[in-house]
Amino acid sequence: MAIDYSLYLITDRLLVGDKDFFDAITYALNGGVTLLQVREKNIDSKNFYNIALKLKQIAREFNVPLIVNDRLDIALAIDADGLHIGQNDLPIDVVRSILGKDKILGYSASNVEEALYGEKMGADYIGAGAVFATGSKLDAGDAIGLKGLKEIVEHVHIPVVGIGGISINNLSEIKAVGAEGISLISGILSQKDTYKAAKELIQQWKKKS
Amino acid sequence: MAIDYSLYLITDRLLVGDKDFFDAITYALNGGVTLLQVREKNIDSKNFYNIALKLKQIAREFNVPLIVNDRLDIALAIDADGLHIGQNDLPIDVVRSILGKDKILGYSASNVEEALYGEKMGADYIGAGAVFATGSKLDAGDAIGLKGLKEIVEHVHIPVVGIGGISINNLSEIKAVGAEGISLISGILSQKDTYKAAKELIQQWKKKS
Ligand code: NI
Repeated sequence: MAIDYSLYLITDRLLVGDKDFFDAITYALNGGVTLLQVREKNIDSKNFYNIALKLKQIAREFNVPLIVNDRLDIALAIDADGLHIGQNDLPIDVVRSILGKDKILGYSASNVEEALYGEKMGADYIGAGAVFATGSKLDAGDAIGLKGLKEIVEHVHIPVVGIGGISINNLSEIKAVGAEGISLISGILSQKDTYKAAKELIQQWKKKS
Repeated sequence: MAIDYSLYLITDRLLVGDKDFFDAITYALNGGVTLLQVREKNIDSKNFYNIALKLKQIAREFNVPLIVNDRLDIALAIDADGLHIGQNDLPIDVVRSILGKDKILGYSASNVEEALYGEKMGADYIGAGAVFATGSKLDAGDAIGLKGLKEIVEHVHIPVVGIGGISINNLSEIKAVGAEGISLISGILSQKDTYKAAKELIQQWKKKS
């Protein structure tokens, strides 16, 4: 599968406010989200499984791959398109061997060393950040800035997606340093109109600069 | 592997008090624990993996199987001897198909219906409870009593282990209704001397009645 990393939506059921969680995601997919990650914390396995299964069905309608965050077992159980892991998750080499080579494997990195390690251990892409300071609960320390993102892009040979504090106002800078896409949570899910938010982001991203 | 369900210790790193977690478990194994389950909540995957891996090594020294609670991915990652799931975990049929038929699969049940479902879906044993009221944070509702335990034992053909509020003072009642073993957390781990606690429990359990 050719993966389009342009607009990568990560879920958080606690950030949709009054909106219906699945509707908010469906509208965002309709608006132009190209990749979807189900990332839910403080949730029991049964609920995570049920949410992931439903999102897989929704994502499939849009021909968008569904990636599971952290939980290799959920990814296997719903036969997700991939898994995204970070520094506090299972060891990446162990994950790759269980997940198999055909699934998408993403790896969070906040510096070149982590990114190179991820690439070496079998990651298909790097989620690099937090680029800018953010309120979302990401597994990230201090912001790495455009400089940190650029360094990661320059050192690995796999796609790099920027994450953390990205908005319509700064995404051209993310693109300018060579990232293959932008990843957002609240920048889409917390917006009143998730369709519009996604549409504006993808249009801005695809603009010739 | 022939499994001895007699004295089944379930972990909780938050219940060992001032004692070293791994020492407390090692002493309990030395005292006579026959089966070990690593059950840790509110923990990231990396830490759960590291704890489970270490406990697998410790359990192996005592020839005791190590079962992982809830997290199928951790069980696969450390190649555990089995997995224990409950009503709020992944669907048991999905779990069995991913785990494979050679691994031990335990299922929590608090009534006959759940126990029969677990047996039908491939469980190797049932963890039935809570038998008595307990302070430990188990995935259990109200106590089912000896009557509830007895009903489960009488309806399934796989081993049943009693759990919840079991102590040296009531374990003979658990045995009398036909359970194959007793499962404890704080009844061992919160005791000052986990070796002595386990030893007294197993001696009492093995006593001819
Ligand atoms: Ni360099």
